[in-house]
Amino acid sequence: MSEVLENYVRGRWQAGKAPLADLHDPTTGEVIARASTGGIDMKGALDWARDVGGKALRAMTFAQRAEMLLAASKAIHAHRDALLEVGIRNGGNTRKDAKFDVDGAIGTLAAYADWGKKLGDTDAMLDGEGIQLGRTPRLWGQHVLLPRHGVAVHVNAFNFPAWGLAEKAACAWLAGMPVVSKPATATAMLAERVVRVLVDAKVLPEGALSLLCGSAGDLLDHMTAQDVLAFTGSADTGYLLRSKERLLRRSVRVNVEADSLNSAVLGPDVEPGTETWNLFLRDVVTDMTQKAGQKCTAIRRVLVPAARLADVEADLKERLTALKIGHPGQEGVGMGPLSTASQLRDAKAGVTKLLAESTIVFGTLDEPALVGATPGAGWFLSPVLLRTKDASAAKTVHEHEVFGPVSTLLPWDGTPAAAADLVRKGEGSLVASVFSDDRDFVRQMIVAIGPWHGRLYLGSEHMAGQSPGPGTVLPGTIHGGPGRAGGGEELGAFRGLALYQQRVALEGDRAAIEKMFPPK
Amino acid sequence: MSEVLENYVRGRWQAGKAPLADLHDPTTGEVIARASTGGIDMKGALDWARDVGGKALRAMTFAQRAEMLLAASKAIHAHRDALLEVGIRNGGNTRKDAKFDVDGAIGTLAAYADWGKKLGDTDAMLDGEGIQLGRTPRLWGQHVLLPRHGVAVHVNAFNFPAWGLAEKAACAWLAGMPVVSKPATATAMLAERVVRVLVDAKVLPEGALSLLCGSAGDLLDHMTAQDVLAFTGSADTGYLLRSKERLLRRSVRVNVEADSLNSAVLGPDVEPGTETWNLFLRDVVTDMTQKAGQKCTAIRRVLVPAARLADVEADLKERLTALKIGHPGQEGVGMGPLSTASQLRDAKAGVTKLLAESTIVFGTLDEPALVGATPGAGWFLSPVLLRTKDASAAKTVHEHEVFGPVSTLLPWDGTPAAAADLVRKGEGSLVASVFSDDRDFVRQMIVAIGPWHGRLYLGSEHMAGQSPGPGTVLPGTIHGGPGRAGGGEELGAFRGLALYQQRVALEGDRAAIEKMFPPK
Repeated sequence: MSEVLENYVRGRWQAGKAPLADLHDPTTGEVIARASTGGIDMKGALDWARDVGGKALRAMTFAQRAEMLLAASKAIHAHRDALLEVGIRNGGNTRKDAKFDVDGAIGTLAAYADWGKKLGDTDAMLDGEGIQLGRTPRLWGQHVLLPRHGVAVHVNAFNFPAWGLAEKAACAWLAGMPVVSKPATATAMLAERVVRVLVDAKVLPEGALSLLCGSAGDLLDHMTAQDVLAFTGSADTGYLLRSKERLLRRSVRVNVEADSLNSAVLGPDVEPGTETWNLFLRDVVTDMTQKAGQKCTAIRRVLVPAARLADVEADLKERLTALKIGHPGQEGVGMGPLSTASQLRDAKAGVTKLLAESTIVFGTLDEPALVGATPGAGWFLSPVLLRTKDASAAKTVHEHEVFGPVSTLLPWDGTPAAAADLVRKGEGSLVASVFSDDRDFVRQMIVAIGPWHGRLYLGSEHMAGQSPGPGTVLPGTIHGGPGRAGGGEELGAFRGLALYQQRVALEGDRAAIEKMFPPK
Repeated sequence: MSEVLENYVRGRWQAGKAPLADLHDPTTGEVIARASTGGIDMKGALDWARDVGGKALRAMTFAQRAEMLLAASKAIHAHRDALLEVGIRNGGNTRKDAKFDVDGAIGTLAAYADWGKKLGDTDAMLDGEGIQLGRTPRLWGQHVLLPRHGVAVHVNAFNFPAWGLAEKAACAWLAGMPVVSKPATATAMLAERVVRVLVDAKVLPEGALSLLCGSAGDLLDHMTAQDVLAFTGSADTGYLLRSKERLLRRSVRVNVEADSLNSAVLGPDVEPGTETWNLFLRDVVTDMTQKAGQKCTAIRRVLVPAARLADVEADLKERLTALKIGHPGQEGVGMGPLSTASQLRDAKAGVTKLLAESTIVFGTLDEPALVGATPGAGWFLSPVLLRTKDASAAKTVHEHEVFGPVSTLLPWDGTPAAAADLVRKGEGSLVASVFSDDRDFVRQMIVAIGPWHGRLYLGSEHMAGQSPGPGTVLPGTIHGGPGRAGGGEELGAFRGLALYQQRVALEGDRAAIEKMFPPK
């Protein structure tokens, strides 16, 4: 009998009614748990979060919420080993991949605890300095940021069940909003364990966190004007959520972080064998193989000066050949399976789609040789490196993201203008990376492609050994991107709180305003 | 023959094809102009703005764009008298009302010119300070704000044809985006004149401004991922625009500023006859009568401690009785007609709706006595002051905005908690005002109702003579509000540029980033 994951609603663990969805071990294909939200009162869940959790969090100062975040971070850290095992088992993560997720959760909560501490013992955050509004200095304007009086509904993606829950919750909680978290059902086991850890550790006030392990059901039909919906996942699901009349009519805030075709650009100044060259190779290979390429920030399009193409291909092939694929819990295995059967199906179909305009440089759609795993049982795909002949004429490579260990080389003429034209064909991405030690080239690229991205990673010789690479989302910089990437924004230190706050301009007598909301 | 208003598209004045819509003088009901966008190539208009205007504006520094804004402000000022006449004639504005609109345009452009000058000779705006991202200070994060590579489409409301065009354009232009402006057709004559002034003065680079005097046609069907739509008007139209699949699928940024039921709260500490009392009366009467109450920021719900209700009623009646209604161009007339026949129809129907839960304290739905205007010809309504018996049980007064000289008194028990409950029934407003000299009461109100508003106006004895009142939108504070008010945000000094910028996190070597984007 497989375990039934419970939902945590109105302060109680509750199993959902049949039918239950299956959760698998993607290495073996076995069913390891089941989950459902059948029979859960979604309206009641939201009302309770708003009434009990919202009031409790708003009664706390930023310093108190920061302590709460730190305690949550520590509680998760205390159960790190057990959580890593769940990531390996339900996510198909290697131990390193699982750490990426779980340590990301621990680290992001701790980072927001630090920032919250800086805000101190106050319930209101000032937004910028005050401003004189009239002819005399008496008529004063001061913007303040106040927590919204609703609930934050977090709909997360399957690939980061721990980090996805924690990075969104850290921002909402520090801002003063309660959270109802809905992980993707297929990998919800890790999210469920994280919530159990937090509930058992009693580090959160009642109502601050609820969990729905199955379908969202009619959850969104009960959202109201002060609520916030933050979604990470596919563009199609993002569209379905944000197009709901109820949300649009009530101006419910919706943040979408969706698919994107992230680019890496190798500058024409970078010579083979240099530090910048090797950093570029490392980052491309990391993004192809980490989490089996199932990262929304992963490099999908690799722009290489035509003259360097053969060298890049040879070096990438060498590195990819050395990779061991198989049981993610086994020592030495560098890449596990995709997380679900449908991910594998979609990835293979996606590569087939790309093949209309590209050829395979490395890899195959057949199951790769496996270390420590039974052939034919799990959902394995080898890294697939493609090359497009005419990057400018190609369409699919700029429009269709294959969410797996798949990347495409795009030869180009080495000019910033042509690189920018190619990058922009993606219609907006989470991140792009530019590998170059030529500052003129880099600045031109920043200005030309910046508006199509939420983040630009600048790889240079000085970055070797300093950076985890473009695929890693750090809490200090924003995460999100325009257009195809969903148009949203998360994290970025205090910027991440804005989604959960209402900016209010106070207009009145300067002395009175400064007495009530003292400037720093 | 009435004048045909032309559209300014692709750098040429072009009349639209039949059928043409009529524009009226609301004082007499006469047709004074006609307009249409029939036959205008909307896709071509947007492409041209993006390609020609966007490139030109992005090639300018902030200091250069600031000079441009100042020149635009001066050009409008040079034609002020002629523009005021158009406001009187096509808008039914008194001279004072017309100044409110035209001087608002002049002042907002000048204010943004000042702010732009402060940004200096650079094409990139830093967003906050840099931040250390890694264990060593070398891995650095710096957020920058870059102009989006699209076009800003501005769909404006009928009540502020000059200010609405200018306040939106000031922010877009300073950020570096070209504008296609679509005023409400009924009062488009003033917007058309403003654009003619700007075009003739040659103060803008080619492509920076286009104008559509008639229907938007299929304009929105050609918007792309880097474009921005900013709309001011009714909640229903706002919903229609923002629910378009094309906009949602491409994450086109949409800002909505819609109807709201703005409140004024008279604190229980305020004694009749005091400065704060008189300020409260002045602001309620101003908001009822200025622009004939056709202001999205106007006070619609007036919360009065039950014990003060009789005094407030008596004092408001006295002030409203003194008001002269009639030809808006005539000296001594305090209020003109509503701007259109449908506004008058809707306002009367709205009052009838409110009467189910309220009684009339002052005014009537019959045409008032007119000064200098022919009875039965124009679209006049007297100020209508209502009173609701049970403010907490009432629904319509909190949900249905009557967009005319109409306001309702709501008696309440004087406690902040009960006031907050009433105010929040509006489900989000642009502005609320609190009149009180009791700072504890005021701070409690700010925290309780702040998240439901974009701005809180704090009326106190120190404000008398200092402030234009809650109904006036100042460029230094944000304009917009959550929920019913549309969830948008405009103006607020530099905050107003954000809609037209992409925030991009740069991640890389500190020295390189600081060289390319020097910190202040």
